[in-house]
Amino acid sequence: MNEHTQSQLDALNACVAACEHCAAACLQEQDVNMMARCIGLTRDCADICALTARLVARGSDYAAQLAPVRAAICQACADECGRHAHRHCQECAEACRRCA
Amino acid sequence: MNEHTQSQLDALNACVAACEHCAAACLQEQDVNMMARCIGLTRDCADICALTARLVARGSDYAAQLAPVRAAICQACADECGRHAHRHCQECAEACRRCA
Amino acid sequence: MNEHTQSQLDALNACVAACEHCAAACLQEQDVNMMARCIGLTRDCADICALTARLVARGSDYAAQLAPVRAAICQACADECGRHAHRHCQECAEACRRCA
Amino acid sequence: MNEHTQSQLDALNACVAACEHCAAACLQEQDVNMMARCIGLTRDCADICALTARLVARGSDYAAQLAPVRAAICQACADECGRHAHRHCQECAEACRRCA
Repeated sequence: MNEHTQSQLDALNACVAACEHCAAACLQEQDVNMMARCIGLTRDCADICALTARLVARGSDYAAQLAPVRAAICQACADECGRHAHRHCQECAEACRRCA
Repeated sequence: MNEHTQSQLDALNACVAACEHCAAACLQEQDVNMMARCIGLTRDCADICALTARLVARGSDYAAQLAPVRAAICQACADECGRHAHRHCQECAEACRRCA
Repeated sequence: MNEHTQSQLDALNACVAACEHCAAACLQEQDVNMMARCIGLTRDCADICALTARLVARGSDYAAQLAPVRAAICQACADECGRHAHRHCQECAEACRRCA
Repeated sequence: MNEHTQSQLDALNACVAACEHCAAACLQEQDVNMMARCIGLTRDCADICALTARLVARGSDYAAQLAPVRAAICQACADECGRHAHRHCQECAEACRRCA
């Protein structure tokens, strides 16, 4: 695997982990209602980035076709997470931004 | 879940199962080299349709955004499988076509 | 695919869809805090049942090895969902029970 | 995320990527028949390690319950890949061993 592929995979995997961690931590917050949109978006984002990582690692043509959808969910997730002060949200927003 | 959503899910799940079954059966064929492209495409197709089914079931906006990619891989997979006489390939081609 | 495999896949796919739908609907409820455990469990359950369905469809030996974990999460999810009166929770509990 | 969790995730993600890359490269080899078992095992291994990474990142109780199954498939995959001289197989065997 070349360096470019590896750095793509690192960004994708970091985004998946940050989204999973954020969703789980949001469910433990005092006011979960406030975090509902965040939980929904991190779920979609984790799923789409995880699939992209698989396609990138196997050299599939469909990784590139998924790119616009992945960029859109990463941006939406970064925007939503960025609105919350929780550390897990701020870290997730940062990981999503790097991935978008 | 309404009837339309359920019939979408049925088509997606049938496609995932047919692709998984086809890939596994291709690996048992006498001439696996002939089936290499089929194995690669069924893998991508199963992964993309499985993710779509999850997004559809949760009512995500990103299911619609994935639709063109999913249609493209289903069509590519149907075309490749349709070229092989094996029963698992013909069944997979049919499931992919219904899904595309 | 024989009848037994198909009925296993149907139960698994129905469970995945019910869990996804339940998690999404829980996030729209008035008191999301009450549903936090349900959302967490349905997520794990959907992921584990979706993987099992893939392994079953490809005839993998590891489907059987996953069976005890899958039965445990289906049971835990059925128990938690069964405690809530929401229709999506009751339907999810039923789908998980059939799958366990 | 603490250091232990991060190093677990790194090992799991490296294993997923190595398995995906190995399966795709095996399909391009001159004698795919020889690689059929390898392709099948790397697929199961990638799927099970990818799910485990998701569960670990979200702090799920079910990550630990999956551990024996994951160790078994990583070991089986390392053994099979270790028997082939291809560089992608040797790298995959190494990644699986570190993960097991």
